[in-house]
Amino acid sequence: MAFQVPQGFLLAGVYCGIKRGVRRHDLTLVMSEVPASAAGVYTQNLVCAAPVTLDRARTPSDRICTVVICSGVANACTGDRGLRDAEEMARWAAAACGAEPEQALVLSTGIIGSFLPMDKVAQGISAAAVKLGRSEASLIAAARGMLTTDTIHKLAGRTVTVGGRDILITGMAKGAAMMGPNMATMLALVMTDATLTADAAQSALKIATDDSFNCMSVDGHMSTNDTVLLLANGAAGGPPLAGDDLAVFQAALDEVCVDLAKAIAGDGEGATHLVTLEVNGCADRQSALEIAKTVANSPLVKTALHGADPNWGRIISAAGYSNVPFDPNGVTLRLNGFLLYEKGAPAEFDGEAVSTSIRDNRNTLIQLDFSEGTAGRKFWTADLTAEYVRLNADYHT
Amino acid sequence: MAFQVPQGFLLAGVYCGIKRGVRRHDLTLVMSEVPASAAGVYTQNLVCAAPVTLDRARTPSDRICTVVICSGVANACTGDRGLRDAEEMARWAAAACGAEPEQALVLSTGIIGSFLPMDKVAQGISAAAVKLGRSEASLIAAARGMLTTDTIHKLAGRTVTVGGRDILITGMAKGAAMMGPNMATMLALVMTDATLTADAAQSALKIATDDSFNCMSVDGHMSTNDTVLLLANGAAGGPPLAGDDLAVFQAALDEVCVDLAKAIAGDGEGATHLVTLEVNGCADRQSALEIAKTVANSPLVKTALHGADPNWGRIISAAGYSNVPFDPNGVTLRLNGFLLYEKGAPAEFDGEAVSTSIRDNRNTLIQLDFSEGTAGRKFWTADLTAEYVRLNADYHT
Repeated sequence: MAFQVPQGFLLAGVYCGIKRGVRRHDLTLVMSEVPASAAGVYTQNLVCAAPVTLDRARTPSDRICTVVICSGVANACTGDRGLRDAEEMARWAAAACGAEPEQALVLSTGIIGSFLPMDKVAQGISAAAVKLGRSEASLIAAARGMLTTDTIHKLAGRTVTVGGRDILITGMAKGAAMMGPNMATMLALVMTDATLTADAAQSALKIATDDSFNCMSVDGHMSTNDTVLLLANGAAGGPPLAGDDLAVFQAALDEVCVDLAKAIAGDGEGATHLVTLEVNGCADRQSALEIAKTVANSPLVKTALHGADPNWGRIISAAGYSNVPFDPNGVTLRLNGFLLYEKGAPAEFDGEAVSTSIRDNRNTLIQLDFSEGTAGRKFWTADLTAEYVRLNADYHT
Repeated sequence: MAFQVPQGFLLAGVYCGIKRGVRRHDLTLVMSEVPASAAGVYTQNLVCAAPVTLDRARTPSDRICTVVICSGVANACTGDRGLRDAEEMARWAAAACGAEPEQALVLSTGIIGSFLPMDKVAQGISAAAVKLGRSEASLIAAARGMLTTDTIHKLAGRTVTVGGRDILITGMAKGAAMMGPNMATMLALVMTDATLTADAAQSALKIATDDSFNCMSVDGHMSTNDTVLLLANGAAGGPPLAGDDLAVFQAALDEVCVDLAKAIAGDGEGATHLVTLEVNGCADRQSALEIAKTVANSPLVKTALHGADPNWGRIISAAGYSNVPFDPNGVTLRLNGFLLYEKGAPAEFDGEAVSTSIRDNRNTLIQLDFSEGTAGRKFWTADLTAEYVRLNADYHT
């Protein structure tokens, strides 16, 4: 599938030596030719990284021109020096794009507690600046520059027609591990050539994030660096979107964010399954989210799915400790469409057939229905494998 | 270490075929020669097993004579038939011990959603009844009858002198997985020949449980069957304990429960480390518990410890998403006595030495200090290994 760069954006991804031991892209530069409205949604971890502190202070904004991203070092738990490094990195990126220092945003991901190798960052920004382009190759290189243990780059896009104009929304993301609801070592940057006020961009991003990146988990560990940014540069022309036009944009933005969230969950470290949970019949949306999150984060549920084992008891019992009140006799569970548990009692089912359907499909669907109301929620996660343990037991600090 | 059976108790453990595929003890019968005060603390899972429903209704009590335990089938999510089966099992056990049906308590652990093989349970109770004894061999056989994927049986005991009388407190437990705070597929039975009123027994057990079984997790998955029972039969003589005597008893009971909780955590499925967390300097005990629990349940922390990796960033960031407010600049972390992080900043340390100390010791100590107050809490957990994944991906439903 081909993805296009929205008008007025230029991108590059390069290797500059921040990542140790592997020669893979580790610095991404994104430039908007005109100042863009910028919105951000950030980790709720009390211990947050320097780039988060910097970006949080600078968004929402209506004059951002560049985003610089590095992977390999998170610049988290690095104190005042870390904050100065993040500011310096922003200043260099802005200079490379002909902008003012405060018109830049910064993202970092990787090892916690190490300082950025600033000489390499400087080299990387210089190298990326001369490579800036609008081709799909540039977009892919940029998407690669933000990866850590991800196995593939993650892109998503939609084109919508609003007020007679074609508008592009294109996003890139990275994930892999240290991921829980309220985000993750999860970075995402969504670019659009739509015209949005800074406030509208912030509101739209918040709405899109709530049903995508905040409904996704790999291991439930909330990172210090999680950030989702939206840049809207208005290069497609027209006045700021409002009313029905804004609603059309929102729907497309929601889809882009869900695509990216699913890509992250499905590429969780060591994952062999992308697991979709659909929780319905709840008293309210928050209840549905709590149940989904509790089931998604249960290591016993995740290992059972890895083993292609229709162990419905683990799913039902996880729902039972979610702290959401419900009638146990109103619970129904389907796995890949097979009815396993109905109104609080085990159903007759062909265990071998269910097991085969789990084993033969990378996508697994868990549907939990309650008898408390009409609210529902979707949630995405991965299974838990020995490879996840290996990756995280061996990852160098 | 030798453990003694408190006066007036008789025990047996047998194999009767409830466990499939392996010929290991799967039924335990415990008898008190005189009616005992009995207390229970149970899972808070909304979806609870039939034995939990039965025991919860029967405790506290001052006339319990027998406890029957089976392993292999949990009798959970089994509806009305499951409850009738639990009642029948209690009735048979009571009859075998010459007691009234309602003088029996029941514990089950194992697969969720299967019905008990009642013919085998009946055979097991009959076989156990003729083997009842007070030797250490009987005690060990009884402790084995409650195990599932545990690798070793778990016993703990204390002798204290109260009012000139020697009192024995001896406990047995099983654990392995599906374990989170507020208990786990965690069963424990503590027997004592002390004299306690039913209310005193209930109160003492609640206090002991709060700082032992409720401060322990393997995978954070709260089971449908978790139960801790205390039986006090007064066979040592004397009036019901009160005042200072009760305090002496409480202290010893606390120690027995902590011993059992540590044994469970250290024998978590696939575990290679028993991890002790000491969280101090918190505003209140609940805050310390929340932080400890969040760190203990982070798969990234658990895999790092398995890899002997002093990855303090994962520990600090886990504390940061515990939903407990604290000053990030007041956090200090020690691992096996090595200072890794001090007052919000990375400390200089010898990574190789820390790594070696983790690798060479089965016990790992994590000490987290905050600057919010004087409250603290201890918590026990295990590391997360590929073996845990293998065990739980392959465990038959």
